[in-house]
Amino acid sequence: MSGLFITIEGPDGAGKTTALNELFPRLEKEAKGKIIATREPGGVKIAEKIRQLILDPNHQEMDVRTEALLYAAARRQHLVEVIIPALEAGKMVLCDRFVDSSLAYQGAGRRIGMDSVAMINEFATEGLQPDFTLYLDIDSDEGLRRIQRSRKASIDRLETEGLEFHQRVRHAYLKLVEKQPERFLLIHANQDVQEVVNECYTAIKTKYPLFFEE
Amino acid sequence: MSGLFITIEGPDGAGKTTALNELFPRLEKEAKGKIIATREPGGVKIAEKIRQLILDPNHQEMDVRTEALLYAAARRQHLVEVIIPALEAGKMVLCDRFVDSSLAYQGAGRRIGMDSVAMINEFATEGLQPDFTLYLDIDSDEGLRRIQRSRKASIDRLETEGLEFHQRVRHAYLKLVEKQPERFLLIHANQDVQEVVNECYTAIKTKYPLFFEE
Repeated sequence: MSGLFITIEGPDGAGKTTALNELFPRLEKEAKGKIIATREPGGVKIAEKIRQLILDPNHQEMDVRTEALLYAAARRQHLVEVIIPALEAGKMVLCDRFVDSSLAYQGAGRRIGMDSVAMINEFATEGLQPDFTLYLDIDSDEGLRRIQRSRKASIDRLETEGLEFHQRVRHAYLKLVEKQPERFLLIHANQDVQEVVNECYTAIKTKYPLFFEE
Repeated sequence: MSGLFITIEGPDGAGKTTALNELFPRLEKEAKGKIIATREPGGVKIAEKIRQLILDPNHQEMDVRTEALLYAAARRQHLVEVIIPALEAGKMVLCDRFVDSSLAYQGAGRRIGMDSVAMINEFATEGLQPDFTLYLDIDSDEGLRRIQRSRKASIDRLETEGLEFHQRVRHAYLKLVEKQPERFLLIHANQDVQEVVNECYTAIKTKYPLFFEE
């Protein structure tokens, strides 16, 4: 596959989505038609339905391992229908969350264990890893404050977890960054969002100059 | 867990469900209130919804690995809500299909590979295995003929597969039986259903005499 697979990760409240919304048009202007931005379930019918099951607040009895398997299933379908075709067409794929999110949220946050969650995701992805991952780091306190401020209306099951859950998630991310420094770039998300976007932009342009020249 | 976990397995058309429908009341008469019969999704709300996703004939684009992960997710939820509580209460659980079905159908039938399908099911079950498995064996030709005769109205996605698929499934079952002879009992399902039921009944009574005496 000739494309580039770039993921954006981080705890809730790190501002991933906002940053990606600014980052994508800037990059796209310079490589028209060669970049897509996506996030699971990404408009994929089957993945959307799986996602609805996971986030339904009436499903309080859902076991944590059921949840992890459903995330892996939705990921697989999105990967097959959206990401792989784009990579095969030589495109750059900017993806909001991928396997690292499951390692952090289900593996550490839900305490299933990162290794076993890695295993079912390895099954889902057949080992496909991002080429580059922008990790937006934020203090758990500050992340939680931001969620509470901005999303009062539409909070989902994961976001209603407490501070300790969010601390486990962040700690897991930091361990992943430490283990694979060549894949991750840590960006401090405490600063102004324009600064975060600038760092992401510069990192991608510096790492893949040829992609934008062709 | 003090109960007994017994599964019934076999290719489509082997007559598992018919046999179980006769077997269960006979056993239940002798151990009232101590036996349950179940099958995935087993009336479990979340598992039912997952099952609907899998079997929906409009989901032709479903990837085989998505399907395998969804089966594992539904299995997990049914296990947690139905099987484990019954085993913890000391009951005998008769379950129509379990992990072996996924190994045979997704692993071999769909050609994902039995080892990787075993891995995601190990995640789903946390290693819980049946104590005893009745494997109803049937020629693939004869199995297919029986399906075509009896289920014309409500055939699902898996049952519409061709002869080669069903041969791979049967071959996989036979390999599992060979690998774990202490767990499996092979019963020839070509014979009259009353004979099949009698063999199942005798096998369980012989293997677990104390359960029926208490």
